[in-house]
Amino acid sequence: MTPSARPTPVYLDCDTGVDDALALALLLASPEADLVGVGTVSGNTGAEQAAANTLALLALAGRAGVPVAVGAGNASVPVPHIHGANGLGDVLLPASGESPAAESAAELLIGLSHTHAGRLHVVAVGPLTNLATALELDGTLPERVASVTVMGGAARSPGNITAVAEANIGNDPEAARRVFAAPWDITLVPLDVTLVNRLTEDDRRRLEESGRPVARTLGLILNRYFDFYVSVYGLRCAALHDPLAAALAIGCVEPLLAPRVSVTIDDTHGPGRGQTICDLRGQWRDYPEQPGVRSRVVLSTTQPLAPILMERLLAL
Amino acid sequence: MTPSARPTPVYLDCDTGVDDALALALLLASPEADLVGVGTVSGNTGAEQAAANTLALLALAGRAGVPVAVGAGNASVPVPHIHGANGLGDVLLPASGESPAAESAAELLIGLSHTHAGRLHVVAVGPLTNLATALELDGTLPERVASVTVMGGAARSPGNITAVAEANIGNDPEAARRVFAAPWDITLVPLDVTLVNRLTEDDRRRLEESGRPVARTLGLILNRYFDFYVSVYGLRCAALHDPLAAALAIGCVEPLLAPRVSVTIDDTHGPGRGQTICDLRGQWRDYPEQPGVRSRVVLSTTQPLAPILMERLLAL
Repeated sequence: MTPSARPTPVYLDCDTGVDDALALALLLASPEADLVGVGTVSGNTGAEQAAANTLALLALAGRAGVPVAVGAGNASVPVPHIHGANGLGDVLLPASGESPAAESAAELLIGLSHTHAGRLHVVAVGPLTNLATALELDGTLPERVASVTVMGGAARSPGNITAVAEANIGNDPEAARRVFAAPWDITLVPLDVTLVNRLTEDDRRRLEESGRPVARTLGLILNRYFDFYVSVYGLRCAALHDPLAAALAIGCVEPLLAPRVSVTIDDTHGPGRGQTICDLRGQWRDYPEQPGVRSRVVLSTTQPLAPILMERLLAL
Repeated sequence: MTPSARPTPVYLDCDTGVDDALALALLLASPEADLVGVGTVSGNTGAEQAAANTLALLALAGRAGVPVAVGAGNASVPVPHIHGANGLGDVLLPASGESPAAESAAELLIGLSHTHAGRLHVVAVGPLTNLATALELDGTLPERVASVTVMGGAARSPGNITAVAEANIGNDPEAARRVFAAPWDITLVPLDVTLVNRLTEDDRRRLEESGRPVARTLGLILNRYFDFYVSVYGLRCAALHDPLAAALAIGCVEPLLAPRVSVTIDDTHGPGRGQTICDLRGQWRDYPEQPGVRSRVVLSTTQPLAPILMERLLAL
């Protein structure tokens, strides 16, 4: 970002959630971003709990004024073994004095799309229920949104809730199908790239031992999440799913290989339910253009996220 | 193979087809294999045409005695732009004096499983229609089959008839589902590994310029196939799908990474139809055992096929 550039207005849709907390903190810590609103959705935890968590984190960061709206429930089942019973690794945060907005997350998003028409970046790091609802309420929404960045799905990588489905997409494939069918530019940040961007135990300890309240809290919150990842990687660490999507959306990490290819969501009730079917058949020919396609899939980045994330979180 | 080892009795199920012809020739040229029968199935071309092609190739190789049985049709549509109108790149071979066996391919397979009980290796390089029919006719078949090697599907790789489906599986997903559910050891040889094993134009010319009838014919047959692959790779060459499966089955090429993981066939009518869903979620932990699973998926090999294939085809 050049010093004179205006920060990008960002609407964050999340199910806070340990890695959602990292994404939220990164957005708050980044000069490229102006976080103008947060909507919550059921996923890692329930939508109401996610809103309470988000409000508590915003208060801790001294940013209590950012509006937070509770969004929709869906068929997702909370995962206390990953994110804790409260979504934040069972770390108790001081409750925020603020309440969620009276409007729904979908209504907040539509409102922000008018306030920041043509400039609003949507960063969606939970199930796509709220975005699908917003599209249903107002089909003109895509005309006012500059870009949508979605953490979700898997292109070549296996899934994480089934062999092919990733949790955000798999928890509401019908919503995802509608979001990917809408006429806006979507950047998909799938497991292929989030699973190779990790925080180490050393990173976590540096956060926990920080004198600053947000960094220290994130270090504590990550503890249980690190336990869970032993079952994935065989060692304590954390995949940086949601913060990577936030980083790509605001440009503090850049895509290296991110072909513009069609993405079809499997919303059958068969074994492929929840898969993001990315058409990578052009792989041997540098991905020739697929006419009419507005989705791109990030398969690699120019630099790892962890160093940038750590620097910014420790300074927050 | 140690010199004293008896060659492996092999039943080849194929839809001959250009690369099927390479697989057939490799089996005929390999001391590790004793080709005891061939069944044909609709796929690259119709089942009857595939049988005529197989008989013609066997006669050319001086092996007219190998029984060839016509198998089942299915929903597959011939692909003359890849394999030519006759399945062999429109090269006309002298017709064989032999006729196909009176029995069906499924019946031939069952018969051979008795003759070579416990030793028969099945190499299936077309749609799995005949294998599914044989399982329906005789549920005890798997007890007498030593191994099944299937060219088909895609694990991390894109498909070739849809973004996720490979032609052999995609042309009869219901049959594939039944074959993968049967109690036998299956080695899946997917596009992941066949697309990186290729024959070059220089290889093809060496075959065409050979003084030996089979090698010369294969070089001619490959001409149109090479044209097709320009649309895949951007240059004239050929993926060695079927011969790689044959080579792995008889051990003249060995798997390097071939985890034993569950394989689920998507036989819905959704966008994932025909996908081989391979559960690779154990990728970060050296693929821990999945209890009860008898399928393995070849993701890499210890050596490339082309040099071995060329050496053997030129000597046939």
